[in-house]
Amino acid sequence: MVTLHLSHESANLKRSVIRDLLSVASAPDIISLAGGLPASEYLPIEQYQECLDTVLKREGSRILQYSPQYAPLRAWIAEYMVKRGVTCTPSEVIITNGAQQGLAILSRLLLDPGDPAVIEQITFTGIQQVTVGRGAAVITVPTDLETGVDLDALEKAFQRQPRLAILIPDFHNPLGVSLSLEKRQRIAELSARYEVPVIEDDPYSALRFEGTPLPPIKCYDEEGTIFYLGSFSKMLAPAVRLGWIVAPTDLIPRITALRESFDLESSILTQTAVYEFLAHGWMDEHLRTFNAANLVRRNALINALQQHFGGEVRWTEPEGGLFMWVTFPETVNTWEVFDQAVKQKVVYVPGGAFAVEGGYTNTMRLNFSNARPEIIQEAISRLATVIQATPELL
Amino acid sequence: MVTLHLSHESANLKRSVIRDLLSVASAPDIISLAGGLPASEYLPIEQYQECLDTVLKREGSRILQYSPQYAPLRAWIAEYMVKRGVTCTPSEVIITNGAQQGLAILSRLLLDPGDPAVIEQITFTGIQQVTVGRGAAVITVPTDLETGVDLDALEKAFQRQPRLAILIPDFHNPLGVSLSLEKRQRIAELSARYEVPVIEDDPYSALRFEGTPLPPIKCYDEEGTIFYLGSFSKMLAPAVRLGWIVAPTDLIPRITALRESFDLESSILTQTAVYEFLAHGWMDEHLRTFNAANLVRRNALINALQQHFGGEVRWTEPEGGLFMWVTFPETVNTWEVFDQAVKQKVVYVPGGAFAVEGGYTNTMRLNFSNARPEIIQEAISRLATVIQATPELL
Repeated sequence: MVTLHLSHESANLKRSVIRDLLSVASAPDIISLAGGLPASEYLPIEQYQECLDTVLKREGSRILQYSPQYAPLRAWIAEYMVKRGVTCTPSEVIITNGAQQGLAILSRLLLDPGDPAVIEQITFTGIQQVTVGRGAAVITVPTDLETGVDLDALEKAFQRQPRLAILIPDFHNPLGVSLSLEKRQRIAELSARYEVPVIEDDPYSALRFEGTPLPPIKCYDEEGTIFYLGSFSKMLAPAVRLGWIVAPTDLIPRITALRESFDLESSILTQTAVYEFLAHGWMDEHLRTFNAANLVRRNALINALQQHFGGEVRWTEPEGGLFMWVTFPETVNTWEVFDQAVKQKVVYVPGGAFAVEGGYTNTMRLNFSNARPEIIQEAISRLATVIQATPELL
Repeated sequence: MVTLHLSHESANLKRSVIRDLLSVASAPDIISLAGGLPASEYLPIEQYQECLDTVLKREGSRILQYSPQYAPLRAWIAEYMVKRGVTCTPSEVIITNGAQQGLAILSRLLLDPGDPAVIEQITFTGIQQVTVGRGAAVITVPTDLETGVDLDALEKAFQRQPRLAILIPDFHNPLGVSLSLEKRQRIAELSARYEVPVIEDDPYSALRFEGTPLPPIKCYDEEGTIFYLGSFSKMLAPAVRLGWIVAPTDLIPRITALRESFDLESSILTQTAVYEFLAHGWMDEHLRTFNAANLVRRNALINALQQHFGGEVRWTEPEGGLFMWVTFPETVNTWEVFDQAVKQKVVYVPGGAFAVEGGYTNTMRLNFSNARPEIIQEAISRLATVIQATPELL
């Protein structure tokens, strides 16, 4: 076999540890708090099936054709953004295959390999893939577990003229933290002042179960430097694979060309079926049920942690989303105990998987949305066994 | 508004002219021979609806979740490749959102901006997007309208150590030409000898309505240098947005990571529904009906061209696929008459849109799959009016 020369641009890309963990976690007797999966039992399968059915019957075979982006869906998204306080017209919306495709497209739009890019020290692996994984010269900024990204550090990073910054405003993956209104305003100001494009990766804001909804950073975009990414994967169902970009109008043709070079288009059948779901007005009720269940599960997770772990173990208490971040004493290494956890039939994501420059070996990300409360209780009980069985710990 | 710095890598990317034409062509009274659309009326909508229905009922809400690639579909694809003569196991198959995503992924895997890449002088715009559009130093090779890509030119190009070459073995888009068995073998030999990866872009081979099916270039891959791209978009329906890569096993983890960085995954609902269609054995019958209709339409197009245009106009006679390539006398400029054609309510793609280095202004690509025979007859009659009304032509 010939050994092929591979691109520099693919050399830095690592497979997400989480995706590997998801394979382990698919064994039926394992309790997984690892993936970013919404609760299967609350996915609106009957309603979505009805939507598919209606659309297939009403539209006929042209619904299986190539098609421009579905205009009513773009209009719905624009209206949704306006309700959230963003100035937005349908012509500023581009439909994508989920928010990850938005990240990949905007990274290509704004960043060449070797260019500086700002990301958080601890951030979603998909954000690392489109920056570190494309050979960017990454500048990291720390994130406070209570208040989110450190703005002094962000400003210093912006002074180095990076090509972009990627931030998560609500229910940060993996930390669970959200940004205050003031921080959002200030990020928009910094973005405009230093002319640094900020990509606001927001797949989770609709998953709020406590506290007051906050407007996106994009609301405060005065100079056309904020790019917003939304997703139906978390709001509705992962298998619809639909999200959207809101971008300045003058960049829409170029973003459209990039999107086409990636995979032409999203399925018109799926776009139309998702719009049917929205037009029925089913989203609000779905989100109420979904978020109510997530709140119960988050509380179950907090209770279980309180019951099994003493004062040296700390966790974030997110007001929505899917994830909680747990910090153990320095002596606990969550990579090292992972195998024992698998033996005890429980899995999580070691926090180090999200740490761009390594470290954070005493942390883990726990998902609370994809297991019933009693299962969460059992999972944490097993985890306590594993960690307490490790002699030098706690 | 701030003017943002854009990446060099996105600067070279142009929107496909064809996608713009498709917008023009969507006016209801226009006859379009422009797009690469299969016949809507032969898309198997009732069967596909039955598949979706079965799968949604059988699998329950987990079919709307995140999921690893659907193993039975990978196995079906591997078996399909084996039937076509390729040594292939399911572990060498990666499911993509259509063949375009395969092109985008493999371009990222093998090519950095500035690297040399070999493509045909006249080729599919999606292939131009992942080479020219990524800033590759493109080396073009000519293609004969009867026999396909010129192998002497290809060998000379390979001697310049390009990072990849992209070729279309069957029913070339836009030329309609297919490669002989000998040419396929020789391409594989050249690829191995010069260690140049060849991407075999094959969305059309299942659309053969005449002549003898030929094995893919991948059949003759001795050194793991041939990457194969297939697609269900043309075989089954564009809106399923599913295709596949067959690649050497040692590169699968890296290709998987790239695919995840692009958009995580393809919908498990769609993957399972398409597999259901295949498991029913419905593909063979669907392709028989579909290809029979395409043959009638290709013949209608040839008849209409013979009737309206004299001996100075030439066209390819493809044995399958969707496209025919028409060459007019040098005096005809298909860009210039396009507006008049729109006024006469008929559209095509000017051949120049596919010409990497420009020129070919006297050519056009005609699609024969997406209009009934009598409509094709009417379209060519209108086109003849336009071209004959232009005084200096013919």
